Amino acid sequence: MPTHTLQTRESKDLPARIALSAATVQGTHLRTEHVDDWLAERARAHTFRVDRIPFAELDGWSFQEATGNLVHRSGRFFTVEGLHVTEEGEPYGDGPYADWYQPIIKQPEVGVLGILVKEFDGVLHFLMQAKMEPGNPNLLQLSPTVQATRSNYTKAHKGADVKYIEYFVGRERGRVIADVLQSEHGSWFYHKSNRNMIVEAVGDVPLLDDFCWLTLGQIGELLHRDNVVNMDSRTVLSCLPFGDATKGALLSDIALLSWITGERTRHCVRAERVPLESIPGWKRGESTIEHEEGRYFNVVAVSVRAGNREVTGWTQPLFEPVGLGVTAFLTRAFGGVPHVLVHARVEAGFLDTVELGPTVQYTPDNYAHLPETKRPPFLDTVLRAPADRIRYEAVHSEEGGRFLNAESRYLVIEADEAEAPLDPPPGYAWVTPAQLTSLVRHGHYLNVQARTMLACLNATAVRTR
Amino acid sequence: MPTHTLQTRESKDLPARIALSAATVQGTHLRTEHVDDWLAERARAHTFRVDRIPFAELDGWSFQEATGNLVHRSGRFFTVEGLHVTEEGEPYGDGPYADWYQPIIKQPEVGVLGILVKEFDGVLHFLMQAKMEPGNPNLLQLSPTVQATRSNYTKAHKGADVKYIEYFVGRERGRVIADVLQSEHGSWFYHKSNRNMIVEAVGDVPLLDDFCWLTLGQIGELLHRDNVVNMDSRTVLSCLPFGDATKGALLSDIALLSWITGERTRHCVRAERVPLESIPGWKRGESTIEHEEGRYFNVVAVSVRAGNREVTGWTQPLFEPVGLGVTAFLTRAFGGVPHVLVHARVEAGFLDTVELGPTVQYTPDNYAHLPETKRPPFLDTVLRAPADRIRYEAVHSEEGGRFLNAESRYLVIEADEAEAPLDPPPGYAWVTPAQLTSLVRHGHYLNVQARTMLACLNATAVRTR
Repeated sequence: MPTHTLQTRESKDLPARIALSAATVQGTHLRTEHVDDWLAERARAHTFRVDRIPFAELDGWSFQEATGNLVHRSGRFFTVEGLHVTEEGEPYGDGPYADWYQPIIKQPEVGVLGILVKEFDGVLHFLMQAKMEPGNPNLLQLSPTVQATRSNYTKAHKGADVKYIEYFVGRERGRVIADVLQSEHGSWFYHKSNRNMIVEAVGDVPLLDDFCWLTLGQIGELLHRDNVVNMDSRTVLSCLPFGDATKGALLSDIALLSWITGERTRHCVRAERVPLESIPGWKRGESTIEHEEGRYFNVVAVSVRAGNREVTGWTQPLFEPVGLGVTAFLTRAFGGVPHVLVHARVEAGFLDTVELGPTVQYTPDNYAHLPETKRPPFLDTVLRAPADRIRYEAVHSEEGGRFLNAESRYLVIEADEAEAPLDPPPGYAWVTPAQLTSLVRHGHYLNVQARTMLACLNATAVRTR
Repeated sequence: MPTHTLQTRESKDLPARIALSAATVQGTHLRTEHVDDWLAERARAHTFRVDRIPFAELDGWSFQEATGNLVHRSGRFFTVEGLHVTEEGEPYGDGPYADWYQPIIKQPEVGVLGILVKEFDGVLHFLMQAKMEPGNPNLLQLSPTVQATRSNYTKAHKGADVKYIEYFVGRERGRVIADVLQSEHGSWFYHKSNRNMIVEAVGDVPLLDDFCWLTLGQIGELLHRDNVVNMDSRTVLSCLPFGDATKGALLSDIALLSWITGERTRHCVRAERVPLESIPGWKRGESTIEHEEGRYFNVVAVSVRAGNREVTGWTQPLFEPVGLGVTAFLTRAFGGVPHVLVHARVEAGFLDTVELGPTVQYTPDNYAHLPETKRPPFLDTVLRAPADRIRYEAVHSEEGGRFLNAESRYLVIEADEAEAPLDPPPGYAWVTPAQLTSLVRHGHYLNVQARTMLACLNATAVRTR
């Protein structure tokens, strides 16, 4: 039974403790320069092999007779279905009308992505896991302490095998620092969200194989390297309640919320699930479902052999984007306070029409056929940015359990008035990282790419180039 | 072009200005004791007549051949369709399984509900409209300044007839105080939300017929009367950013957010739209679609003759609940700070599974057939509350444009440990009105009944019995 004591609504000391961890570039456990060796050792400790296979060799998966949807016979995991999207892009119904079909992943269950933290020598450390996922270009990356589907952790409740799950669910869990349902990729998932949690452990925590404790400063360093910190870690880290040390922002918080509400209102998007079989513009072969012009992504199948998982082998479909993505924030300082230019993005699978994305989030190959005037705003500014304007750069990949080699260059690029004006075009707004940190306490404001960028901005703030 | 000046993220003076308006029980325009006369005069100024009609007499509305859905031939307004809801009620898949069908209103467009405010003699006044709606038991109530569907205000953009809309949309609008997409009734609407706005006018505002300026203190007084302040006004008023004068809360804000996230995760609800024709348990007659046991609500049709609307007559369907609802917060003070007991409610039409509702929100008649042990928690405590425990009571009706005589007794009832324990059952939590005020800045946290209650708690705080 809880005590009768009132709590202060906000923790007074947490922002300072997070800032201290971010400023601590060496932890008490693994030294940053030894992380590569440790990851290589963990990779050697497990066998893990991924091979592409034709759809016919999928075990338990098949194209459903009536719909052509790709489903598992158990009804579990996820399905690949069709989506028909119609969009009236402008307010007042006078804008261009968009209409397209695409495959989409439907996976209604909500998983848990959780990072356990604990103080060592007065500094918060984060418990990270060396985890292999079939879609990762390098297979093994640093993932959250817990990365569990609902099926996983319901089993766990009955005494099964998700390590550390008891720190996140149930009455005995630790002190919650963040806990929010966040969307996943709206272009590839239909209404998918996961529970992002950060929990501070009370008492001792055993350190298991494949896990290590790192400070936020160390993770910030690793976020500068390609394909080390996985997407699930990045989205969870973006939810850390950093404090706001700045003097304000171009838009007050209510002006920002009002702008977001306006963007949600002016877009009128309908996304209807349809049978995969019937979607125009896509063709199904032996081993791929692909777009007729080779754009966007392919649906493929893989076979996985693994030695560190609850099963030793399985087959599954994956989505494979056709090119390297570019995901970038343009940044400018106003009144001495750094701002980033967010884009109110429509993605067909979002629950609530629009979420804030980075300034640029595109696969340039998909636009190569278009004349310059039709190319997405700010894309060319990002692609042509000289090296001395790049404040952050690394290649990260998206969730390796669903996406194969889904890599993007993540960039923060300093812009000027000519490239990114104080008064931006409709659909764009200047906001501070602190404002994004306030928004990300709640779901459906920042898309997963913006959350990766926010994690990089916050965790690497002390050490950007 | 905006200036380069940074804004403070939160207005420093706004909470005090709102508190002053709430404490001001007489305005500079209409005296509270003259509101009844003014409303009666406005009623006399317009003809307005509502008659029940059989579905066959609906003009432009018909039951679609293939589906039995009730639709308008223009494709506009809204449709009445079927919904099939399946719910696994408990975490870990071990709970009771609920499965039902019902009619539901589908109206994808987002309307604007806006109240214009302006300072007179140093006190904020709210511009309220005397507006008739066919479903209101007394036809005419106080509505927001603007209550416009998207079709309404897109017309407005082309120079048409929603009065005062220019203060809410477009570059010339006033200073935004609140602007958020809020859900409407999840039991009757599928994924419906409206834009709730409060805007402070800059410069003079002409006062038109059917409109009056009232302080928040005056509106608080009127909220104690039955069926005076309409639902649209109440939801908009709930979004006012009152300050927090209290010392804290039983749950810190992050503990509260985590509890909400947990409630959203543990409920697994699927709501699939189905043809209205085929829904089991409901029967269609000449003039009603009703539940076989006479429970829940009826779908009916009305003919409206009006003299103050853009058209002088129309017909439309309405939903008519079968009994008087009871909507109540239990309240207790902890550490000297008043708390209310919120309920994490599943309503089938919610966009995101669960929103916070009042402790009790039921039509008691729907549960009369159940044994006492199966009746909803806290309902009997509310129904049996002695008069000296009732801190607030009034009958309010829900949106009169869609719902016919949808009245509920709204109550705030002081409870004790035996009735409402400090450690409440699963699905319930103690929160402060200030915490609800923080949540309601964002959509999909508080359902429309909880927002009515919050408006009453905040606007009447200085004058509860």
